[in-house]
This record gives sequence, C-alpha cells and structure tokens, in this order.
Amino acid sequence: MPDRGPSETRLTLDKLNSLGQKDFAASLGDIYEHSPWVAQGALTERPFKSVTDLHAAMQATVDRALDDARVGLLRAHPDLAGKAALAGELTEKSSFEQSSAGLDSLTPEEMERFQVLNAAYRDKFGFPFIIAVRNATKALILAAFESRTENDPTTEMATALREVGKIAWMRLLEKVIPAPTGRLTTHVLDTAAGKPAGGLPVDLFAVNAQGPQTLLATFVTNADGRLDAPALEGERLKAGTYELLFHAGIYFARAGLATDAPAFLDSIPIRFAISNPESHYHVPLLLSPWSYSTYRGS
Amino acid sequence: MPDRGPSETRLTLDKLNSLGQKDFAASLGDIYEHSPWVAQGALTERPFKSVTDLHAAMQATVDRALDDARVGLLRAHPDLAGKAALAGELTEKSSFEQSSAGLDSLTPEEMERFQVLNAAYRDKFGFPFIIAVRNATKALILAAFESRTENDPTTEMATALREVGKIAWMRLLEKVIPAPTGRLTTHVLDTAAGKPAGGLPVDLFAVNAQGPQTLLATFVTNADGRLDAPALEGERLKAGTYELLFHAGIYFARAGLATDAPAFLDSIPIRFAISNPESHYHVPLLLSPWSYSTYRGS
Amino acid sequence: MPDRGPSETRLTLDKLNSLGQKDFAASLGDIYEHSPWVAQGALTERPFKSVTDLHAAMQATVDRALDDARVGLLRAHPDLAGKAALAGELTEKSSFEQSSAGLDSLTPEEMERFQVLNAAYRDKFGFPFIIAVRNATKALILAAFESRTENDPTTEMATALREVGKIAWMRLLEKVIPAPTGRLTTHVLDTAAGKPAGGLPVDLFAVNAQGPQTLLATFVTNADGRLDAPALEGERLKAGTYELLFHAGIYFARAGLATDAPAFLDSIPIRFAISNPESHYHVPLLLSPWSYSTYRGS
Amino acid sequence: MPDRGPSETRLTLDKLNSLGQKDFAASLGDIYEHSPWVAQGALTERPFKSVTDLHAAMQATVDRALDDARVGLLRAHPDLAGKAALAGELTEKSSFEQSSAGLDSLTPEEMERFQVLNAAYRDKFGFPFIIAVRNATKALILAAFESRTENDPTTEMATALREVGKIAWMRLLEKVIPAPTGRLTTHVLDTAAGKPAGGLPVDLFAVNAQGPQTLLATFVTNADGRLDAPALEGERLKAGTYELLFHAGIYFARAGLATDAPAFLDSIPIRFAISNPESHYHVPLLLSPWSYSTYRGS
Repeated sequence: MPDRGPSETRLTLDKLNSLGQKDFAASLGDIYEHSPWVAQGALTERPFKSVTDLHAAMQATVDRALDDARVGLLRAHPDLAGKAALAGELTEKSSFEQSSAGLDSLTPEEMERFQVLNAAYRDKFGFPFIIAVRNATKALILAAFESRTENDPTTEMATALREVGKIAWMRLLEKVIPAPTGRLTTHVLDTAAGKPAGGLPVDLFAVNAQGPQTLLATFVTNADGRLDAPALEGERLKAGTYELLFHAGIYFARAGLATDAPAFLDSIPIRFAISNPESHYHVPLLLSPWSYSTYRGS
Repeated sequence: MPDRGPSETRLTLDKLNSLGQKDFAASLGDIYEHSPWVAQGALTERPFKSVTDLHAAMQATVDRALDDARVGLLRAHPDLAGKAALAGELTEKSSFEQSSAGLDSLTPEEMERFQVLNAAYRDKFGFPFIIAVRNATKALILAAFESRTENDPTTEMATALREVGKIAWMRLLEKVIPAPTGRLTTHVLDTAAGKPAGGLPVDLFAVNAQGPQTLLATFVTNADGRLDAPALEGERLKAGTYELLFHAGIYFARAGLATDAPAFLDSIPIRFAISNPESHYHVPLLLSPWSYSTYRGS
Repeated sequence: MPDRGPSETRLTLDKLNSLGQKDFAASLGDIYEHSPWVAQGALTERPFKSVTDLHAAMQATVDRALDDARVGLLRAHPDLAGKAALAGELTEKSSFEQSSAGLDSLTPEEMERFQVLNAAYRDKFGFPFIIAVRNATKALILAAFESRTENDPTTEMATALREVGKIAWMRLLEKVIPAPTGRLTTHVLDTAAGKPAGGLPVDLFAVNAQGPQTLLATFVTNADGRLDAPALEGERLKAGTYELLFHAGIYFARAGLATDAPAFLDSIPIRFAISNPESHYHVPLLLSPWSYSTYRGS
Repeated sequence: MPDRGPSETRLTLDKLNSLGQKDFAASLGDIYEHSPWVAQGALTERPFKSVTDLHAAMQATVDRALDDARVGLLRAHPDLAGKAALAGELTEKSSFEQSSAGLDSLTPEEMERFQVLNAAYRDKFGFPFIIAVRNATKALILAAFESRTENDPTTEMATALREVGKIAWMRLLEKVIPAPTGRLTTHVLDTAAGKPAGGLPVDLFAVNAQGPQTLLATFVTNADGRLDAPALEGERLKAGTYELLFHAGIYFARAGLATDAPAFLDSIPIRFAISNPESHYHVPLLLSPWSYSTYRGS
C-alpha cells in the first residue's frame, strides 16, 4: 500500500539536520524537479522536527521566489507522456511517477490526446502541464488536463505550483523517515438517538491498488463510541489508502432501532487516503439507520 | 443477490386479487407463522395494487387484533436454534431462514448461549424471541437477543410484532411478484462549491454475501449532478444489497478543488440494501474533498 | 429561561439521600401523578449521585411494575383541557403545566377538538392522553394527539409511559438541585478544507419563549476549532433553550474560501434545548461555505 | 433587505441589449472601477438573457486581458478607508460601499490599523487591497485583510480579481433588472426514519441588518417533505438575507419520535443569503431529533 517509488534507504530527520550544507542540498536537490535552489532556500530553517515542517520550508522558498524563478521551476518539468518520456530522457523520479499512472502504456488515441493537450496548454500558459500523477488514473489526469487548460493564467499558475508542492511532498516521504506523530482515530455517533454508538464492531483494511484488501485490525467501539486506542499510530501509520468497515447493523439490532428487512444500512465502508503520516486523522461516523456522514475531523 | 428462499413460482398481484377467498387465504396462510387468520383479515382490502399494500393490510390485521391473538401469533414462532430446530420440526420457511443465518451450524458454546437466552427471554415475556434472521449474522442476532431481553414488556412486545412484520414482508416477496414501480436514483452535490457535481463517474455493483461484487452498470453524472435515468428500475430493481462507487477524485481534479497527495477521498463506496423493490430509493451523495454524507432521500 | 413551575425551595441530593423513608416518599410523591408507589420503589437505590440516577430508578420502578399498576399510573392523569381542568380540580403541578402550554385559554373550537380527541383516545386505549406539555404549543399537542390516536395499543402504551417519564423528569428538576456535572461545548470543523476552523467568533444566547434573546457570552474558536473552556458548565448550565451564533463569514474571509456576494452563509444560528443540566452537551458545527451540519455529540 | 445602494432607475435586459454601443459602454462603464474597457469587451456577446450572462461576459473580458490591464484594473480601486476616502474623492459607488461597511466611522485605532495594512499590502503586491465590502462588517474586512496579506502574489492576484468580480456583480444588480428565473425551494427529510418529513410548518423571514425580521410567508411541507410551490420566485425573489424557520418539534411529536423534555431540537432557523436572484436556491433540511444538515442544493 505505501507506494515508495524507486527504492533507496530513507534518511532520518536527525541525519538530515546534521548534514553539511552541500550534502543537505544534494540530498534534496531532486525533490523539486531540476531546482536545487529550493532545498538551498530551506537550509536556514533547520533543524526540522518533521517532514511536514521541511516541506513547508521548501514550499515557502518557492512562494517567496520571483516570478521568473517560479516559472523556471514549472518549465523544468517534462510534458506528460511527452517527447522526453518517449525518448527515455526523464529523471528517474518522473519516469517512475508517469509509469505508475499508466502513462507509459497509452493507446495511440490517448497518446494523440495528450500531445494535443500538451501543445494547447503550453501555448496558453508557457509552461508544461504538471499534476501529481502518482495514485492517479489516466481518466483523472485527462479530466484535470482538459479542465485546467480553461483556467485564466493567474489561477492556473497557482494551481500548477500547488501540484509541484504535492509532487515534492510525495518525493520527500520516500527520502525522509517521517516523525512518528501521526495517528488514526474514529468515533461513532448515533444521530437518531443523540448518543455515542458503543459496541459497534469496526474492521480496518489496507486498500491495495490491485488485488484484495488486507485486514489490518478489528475493533469494537467503547461506551463513548470511540476505540480505546488509535487504530494506527506512529510507524505503523503509513501513507496509503485505507478502509474502515463499520458493522452498523449489529449496533442497530442491539440499540433496538427500527430498520427495514434487510436494513438499508448494515456494514458501512469508509475509504480514505492518508497522505501525511505525521498527522492526526480523525475519521468519525455520524450514523442513523437511514443516513451517515464522515469527514476528516481533528 | 436476491435471496429467494425455498424456490417456488411467484404469483402475480392480478392472480392473487382474483383468487377465491379460500385459495387466497391458503396462498398466504404461512406468511404469518401458523396464523392464517392474518391473511383472512386482509381479504376485504382487495384488490391490492402492490405487495406493499398487501403487507400493510395484513399488518393492520395484526395491529387490530386483541392482545390474546397477538400473543398467540408470537407464541406460534419457534425458538431460534431451539428444540424444534434440533428435532427438524420447523416449518419449511423457518428452517430456511434459520439456516441462512448460520443457526444450523452453531458451536457448542453458541448453542449453549442461545438456550440460556431462549429460557431467560421466554421466562420474562411469555413468548419466544423473534427476529428477522435472513441476511443477519450470528453476531447481530446475539446482540439483539441480549439487548432485547432487557426491554420492558410493553416495548418488547411492540418490537417482536415489528419483527414478525419484517419476516412476513420477506416471505411475501418470495410469494408475490412486486409491482414494477421501484427505482434507484442518485444525485451528487459539491458542498464545497455549492453546486451539482457533474461529470462524476459512478459504478453500480450488486453485493453478494460471499464472493466478489458484480458490476451492474457504469454512469456519469450530468450537469445537474444526476444520472440521466434511474440506475435501476422496474423488474431490474430487486431486493438485495448494492454498492454505488463514486469516483470523486476525477471530479475534484476537473473542478480544480485542492486536495492532498494522495487525495483524502477518491473513490467513495456507498453500500446499502433495497428491501422494497416497489419503492423509490434515492441515494444522494453530498461531497466535499474532506467530507461526505449520504441518506435515503425521496 | 429555566421554567421552574410553582416556586418552591429545591432539595439537594444530599438532603434527599438522608431523609427518612417516609419523608423521601412524601417529597417525591407527586412526581408521578397520584402514584407515590413510584418514589417508594426507588428508595432502595439510594444514595443517588444525580437527578439522572434518581429519575432512572423511578422510571425502572414503573418498567418493573405489573400491567395493572402501569395502567393505573396512566389513568391517574387528568384529561388535557378536560372536565377536571375546567372544574379547577387538577393537581397544582398539572394545572401549571396545562396553562404553560396555553390549554387554559382555548377557543371554543379548540376546546371542542380536545373533547372529541379525549373521548376517541380514551375509548380506544382505556386511559387519558398524556404528553409532556411544558414548553409545548397547542399546535404541537394537537399534532401528537391526532397522530397517537392512530397507534396500535402496544405502541401507544409504550409512548404514554415515555411521556409520563418526561413529565416526571421536568418535575424532578424543579424539586431537586442537579449535580453540577454538565457542560456545553462546541467544535467547528471546516469540511471544505478538512481542518479545524480557528478564529471563528461565536455568541451564546439564552432563548426566551417571549421577548428578545439574552446574550450570555462571546467566544472565539482556538486553533483546534474549539473554545478554550466550556461555554457553560456546572451551576451556570440550566435546562432551557439556547442559541449558538457562529460568525462563519469572518472565518471564510480569513481562510480565503470563495463565496458569493453576499456569502450564502454568514452568521449561522444553532438553536437547541438542554433538558438535562447534569449532562455534557457537545454541539459541533461542520461547516463549508455552502453547507453545514450540527448534532448532539459527545 | 435588498440593499440597493445609490438609488437610480434600473435598466431592463431588453433595453440594455438594444442600446447603441457607446450607450451600452457608458451605462456599464463604472461597473468595473474606472475601467470602461471591460464593458466594451462584453459588447460582442450581446444579446444577454440574464444579468448572470452579462456578468460572465464582463468577467471573461477581465480573464482574457493581459496582465498589465488586469493589474491596471486592480490599481484603479481606492484604498479602504484611505486618503481618497478621507478626502471625499471616491467614486459614488465606492463611497456608498465603504460607508455601508462602517468604514466611514472608524475609531482612531481602527483607522491606524487600516493605514498600516494598506501600506503593507500595497508594498507587497503593488495594488490596493480590494474586497466586496457591502454587507460586510469591519471585523470581517480586517480578518480578510490580515490573512490575505500573507498570500503569495499569484494566489493573491487571483483572489483580488475574484473580489473585483463580486463588486461588479453587486453593482450590476443595482443597474439592471434581473431575469425572473430564480426560485427558492426547500425539502425536509427525516433521516432517523428514512422518509420525507410531511406536515412540518415552515416560516420564511426576511432578515434585516438592523431591527426585527419580517415574516414573509408560512408553509407546511407536503407528503413528499416539500412545499407545494416555491417559497419565493420571479420578481419576489430579491438578493438579500433570509431565514427559514422549521418547526421540527411539531413534526417529531406527530411522527412519534422519542425526544427529551424539552426536545433538543424544536424550531430550527436556517439563515442564508441569496446573491443571485436569477438562480434556483434549494435549501433542504436533513433532520433527526438530534442532528440536522443543510446545504445549497439543486
């Protein structure tokens, strides 16, 4: 599930904080495509307590840069499924990322579509279309490509820089071991009865891109509708896609809530991705026999 | 997916409406366990335009009956995993229903637990524990059993009669072909942007108790966030469990909504059961990049 | 706002726990209309740590009682706007309660409607219609009256006993000082951005049946979207109706969320009643520029 | 409630469509501050069927313009509470708008705060801070001012141009009579019971900035949980702030839903603004005795 990209040994934050300036910049020089100045700009913010802080410092360097440098950063990126990709001239990271989204196996029609969009986009904005493609599908990428080509230049430049930041984030997670501060928690509230839903069984799965899900753990909510401990925390919390499966039917039966036969809601899957393993993900369920809500809480 | 029970040819509503009184009562005599008086009481309400109306007329007969008759109806039911089940003395319908919930293959410890609960429940209320077990699991049944034994007698009698009505409903659906008036619809609203979520791909699956899901159809939401036609309707809408899989990530990418990498929400499964194939099931999705809600709408 | 009924000095729980058995029963003899046996039945559960526990013990006495005693309890209640009311023969408590809902000033047509309903209800169920009328309106009472007359007898008896419990609860709160364990908290989450909504100003009002609202306090949410301390707690948390006014527009402006001009949502009122001042009321707001949800949380 | 600004006779769309080119540009020359080129750019899109289309054509002209022209448009705006305002040198429209937000009556401290922010913002971005101030409060404006000064230049330019579009929208509504295509509708769903909430009384109020609300109409939801006709439509639907007050307590009492005494939810106010009187505003309520949601639907 955690999608690590080109394998390499990851650095600890301690190690990164103690590197010489040149080594620091070299280690992170390819996080922003062909733009080692971003890593250099973040040097003064050391020491970093988290990958989150490191990323923020690098992204702030981009935000502070002059427009010429910002456009240069955008232009340093290759076209998606473009000539460089065809010629095998991508950076190792870009090559891995484009192939993970299936861009190395396009049909001739899809290839044609990408070339037309690449040309139209470059013509309008003066830099290539950039999107964080890892975990994305061709359908998603094409939808974004067509839509963003319609943006006004100011909005699109802000969007492209945001995508650059997302790519950098995923590259950083491959390079640096995150701080073990993250956790995944949940809470089930019965909105029909106005009280916590206790005694409700919950399964946690890892969702794999292909193949079946992997059961990671099973829980039962306590009297306050919560788990007694985080479902995942620290090093066990990895970036990736998960599913919480709430066995609400058992709760409804115990609570005596009237339902249909079979009940409209029984086992409820909530599928979500954790992008930042240093963060708290609170994923609650507001539940009645006929409705539910979920959200990223805090 | 539709779970039909002992196979037999189903009657049309027209046929049922035109039967002689005796044949009508005979046809529906086992819908309420050992209580043909319920079918007889509904006779005067003919003709029925739907199984829904037929069931309502039968359940109204139960509601109107004197307490003695109502308690008699409850007492006509067998214990769950009880002596009659062990001795093979259940009605065909009860036998099928109990085995569908796995009650014919209990461990000795589970069997012991059921006998203890059966005795405690009967002792307190004077009738056996009744629950619509089809599609239920042992865990659900035990949760309901333990909880309902704590009820006060008035509440529990109302609960038991509601379960009798649910069992009758499922038995009716096996016996009588429903009117083709049902439909399944959806609607996706973008609550971050305050507008319909158009262009969002949606898959519809049948969820089977065992084994993989079956893809029934794929759709794309239109400019109003709806499907151009019901996802299912008429005879194609069968009682059973379904899953709508909303490919929200593609919509977010096209709409330019800021998300994480990977996005917190991408493909969102909504799993629900249709118990009444004559009804309209509107199952909308209220969606933002960080939250969603669903409910049975109208 | 707290609606205290006939004024009298309230007892502490300590005092109540130390009373002789006869005095205890006398003190609480009129909590359940003309039914001092309910207070007597709760005696063995002393000491009580809260009015909540006391009420639960009394209601459990009712639940355990034989059907004759339960029907007797129901029959001990007067008709609403009935002969006893007209003749001034109600208990002091019933008289106060009926007049608080405006039942002592009905139009002739309303009076006629009540008499017809009283007769139909009594005829069907064998006991008078009972509803917790304090804080209710004539429209609410008539809606409930007409609807509940359609119930089957088992369901209606359960409903009537639940209303008796609600009346008892409100009478107990007038008689006994609650434990200072309650609190009111809130939490604002930005569901468009997936994070707490900090820096959002919130006003708390007491809502009075007549006349303007009273501003009780103003707050600003902290970085976690919460208030630094409960909005109300302990003795300051009284049963009654409140309104939290969330100044979301200021938050949206600061967060840079795109809105219309004027914004669809700006100041958002959430109005709710606290019935149990010993409890925790968590009243969160899940907020986007185009949608919000609230619920009683925990 | 509709806040019209400097009074003048409004044009019909027909009139506007038939004006000579010079008159058209003159009529709309001050919609975008000191920038008649925006109106000229929209000329070729005539005829306009709605103010919405007219505004879109003008905003598209801005989007298409070169960066110099866009920055010029931003620079054409006055500082908030700035020297031009003090000297009485604002355009009539800007003067009205600034005073409607209370910016003509600042305390010395507030005035000082504005001057500091004006200087910092101009220094960073090269144009004045622009925000649609009508209906805004000083607190909201200061919150936005402080927050937006932290933006990166690309994001802030996109934000500023969006605010220019909002100001233009409000100015257009004063100048041109909107097409009578708008309507306000609602729908109440009982999420505890999974069905429409019929028979629920609803009041509609106009919310005035100062003084009491004005009751516009009362309704009762039909069997589908909807009103039989739009709450407002056509010319009666004006831009402004409204409140729907849902008398849920009456519905709960009729539906027999268990509630506390008093009920947690009784009369539920939903307050919202209509910015575009040509649009459909669907403002539903998803309701249980312990929770509710609302959103702008379609």
